[in-house]
Amino acid sequence: MHAIFEYQDFFISYLENQTITKEPKNLYDPITYILGLGGKRMRPVLTLMATEVFNTSYEKALPAAMAVEVFHNFSLVHDDIMDDAPLRRGQVTVHEKWDINTGILSGDAMLILAYQYFEQYEPVVFRDLAKLFSKTALEVCEGQQWDVDFETRTDVTIPEYLKMIEYKTAVLVAAAMKMGAIVAQTTEENANLIYEFGLNLGLAFQLQDDYLDAFGDPETFGKQVGGDIIENKKTYLYLKAMSFSTQEDATQLAALFATQPADTTDKIVAAKLIFNQSGASEATQEAIQEYTFKAFETLEQMNITADKKAILKSFGENLMNRKV
Amino acid sequence: MHAIFEYQDFFISYLENQTITKEPKNLYDPITYILGLGGKRMRPVLTLMATEVFNTSYEKALPAAMAVEVFHNFSLVHDDIMDDAPLRRGQVTVHEKWDINTGILSGDAMLILAYQYFEQYEPVVFRDLAKLFSKTALEVCEGQQWDVDFETRTDVTIPEYLKMIEYKTAVLVAAAMKMGAIVAQTTEENANLIYEFGLNLGLAFQLQDDYLDAFGDPETFGKQVGGDIIENKKTYLYLKAMSFSTQEDATQLAALFATQPADTTDKIVAAKLIFNQSGASEATQEAIQEYTFKAFETLEQMNITADKKAILKSFGENLMNRKV
Repeated sequence: MHAIFEYQDFFISYLENQTITKEPKNLYDPITYILGLGGKRMRPVLTLMATEVFNTSYEKALPAAMAVEVFHNFSLVHDDIMDDAPLRRGQVTVHEKWDINTGILSGDAMLILAYQYFEQYEPVVFRDLAKLFSKTALEVCEGQQWDVDFETRTDVTIPEYLKMIEYKTAVLVAAAMKMGAIVAQTTEENANLIYEFGLNLGLAFQLQDDYLDAFGDPETFGKQVGGDIIENKKTYLYLKAMSFSTQEDATQLAALFATQPADTTDKIVAAKLIFNQSGASEATQEAIQEYTFKAFETLEQMNITADKKAILKSFGENLMNRKV
Repeated sequence: MHAIFEYQDFFISYLENQTITKEPKNLYDPITYILGLGGKRMRPVLTLMATEVFNTSYEKALPAAMAVEVFHNFSLVHDDIMDDAPLRRGQVTVHEKWDINTGILSGDAMLILAYQYFEQYEPVVFRDLAKLFSKTALEVCEGQQWDVDFETRTDVTIPEYLKMIEYKTAVLVAAAMKMGAIVAQTTEENANLIYEFGLNLGLAFQLQDDYLDAFGDPETFGKQVGGDIIENKKTYLYLKAMSFSTQEDATQLAALFATQPADTTDKIVAAKLIFNQSGASEATQEAIQEYTFKAFETLEQMNITADKKAILKSFGENLMNRKV
């Protein structure tokens, strides 16, 4: 096994060698651009790690890891169009740098390119990877659709919200790890357990994201702190606050989340106050703990050596202690 | 072997049984809608026919045929967004009936659903189908990008135009037929020959489309006659007319294709006159003949019985004699 930053380096080297210089340029340049914007490369790193956890060299998993990263970036390109987002990782989004049509078509090409990376495996592994990939990709689309639907609904429940983030975010983390298990051709039981591990870690990760969006350190948090509040996003924090609050506070919070003030300072302060007073902040942190704990429990059941478990656990702990 | 209309019926029955009633509705309803709009179902019919040409029941090819049709409709949904098209098969387009975001996301889901239909085959067939599908799908994206790029270029050559329609249209016709060969597990040689047959037929088909767009019978042609002229599309007719015309006519045609008059009657008459006088109409019909002939030549080399060849030839002849 290697250190996380080593897997990141291995992956980035591989990625940089893949750069597509094919024609037409207007189709492939945006792909090179978005894949070059950086990021933590968490998902492909998980694929490489998982492969080594099951005693197979990470090298064998590089194409699968690439498929995961290309798919993730496909979803960012199309989501950014849907959200009308100007920036991604601090740089202009594809549809801003080029145009919406380019974003649509380059995104489509990325989805196909992701599948092509599986062609480097033998038929049975190819099919297992592509099947898991299709299932996951479709769930990600469903999650995105729920997210869009929730924007105009005022009756979203906590279980619905959890299902949405499971599909939109957690299943890809889970699938990234299971792909490592498939490449390593470990037992089906191990493969399913690492999927569960990834799923719970992914849920914890997304709830952490919701939490940090409001309470993260502006110095270290990558995005604008309070962004979800500004955009009236009904995150876990909001939904918990609505259910825990006094009638008066709930009414105030709902009213706040119907405004779009030019100066957002007061709105952010007021929302965070209710998040704290209602106990929503604490409940969110508890939920993060809970999903992380569930992930670690799954880990215990896996048929791998104790040192491998320790490495996965340490990865999960790092992820949950992140400030960015 | 069955008659074309029988394959259409077999396919439509299969399609109607596939109707997805999954949640979220905003993701799956547009898919049911676009797949239900009809059309000739030419591509899936070709997959079924090709399978039977190689002595295998069409039933085995239904999932592959469905993948081809779902992919084709995916490309229509995304292309209609890019072209800002209000109508498709006489009905409102998905992004008009819902919105652009719905069109993007439902299209994405269709691309993934197409791959999932291959899961019904055993690993080697699955991989062969998915590989051909990915290669083809990427070429279709490239063709669409060339088409977009050509809109703002005034120096498009005939070979470039032919490459564009090959990628945008012909490769999917070719792949639809080759998928039949893969499902039937015929020889690689036969599979490649039927691909060539489909490719040349697809090129002839698209050039026929260009021709009928200007000279089709308004009574029978499905789309608005003169639509390409109205939209200043540099089709084969236009490019040939530009290269064959006198300096004077070429200047007039270029000027015509820079206008967007409210009343398009005169523009259409003037353009068609130049298409005829320049010899471009004749050259287009010759090119259609040529590609059809090439397709039939390929047919001769195939290792199948004479009656099978006759059926494929008759399909090609019908397609080329179409008025719609």
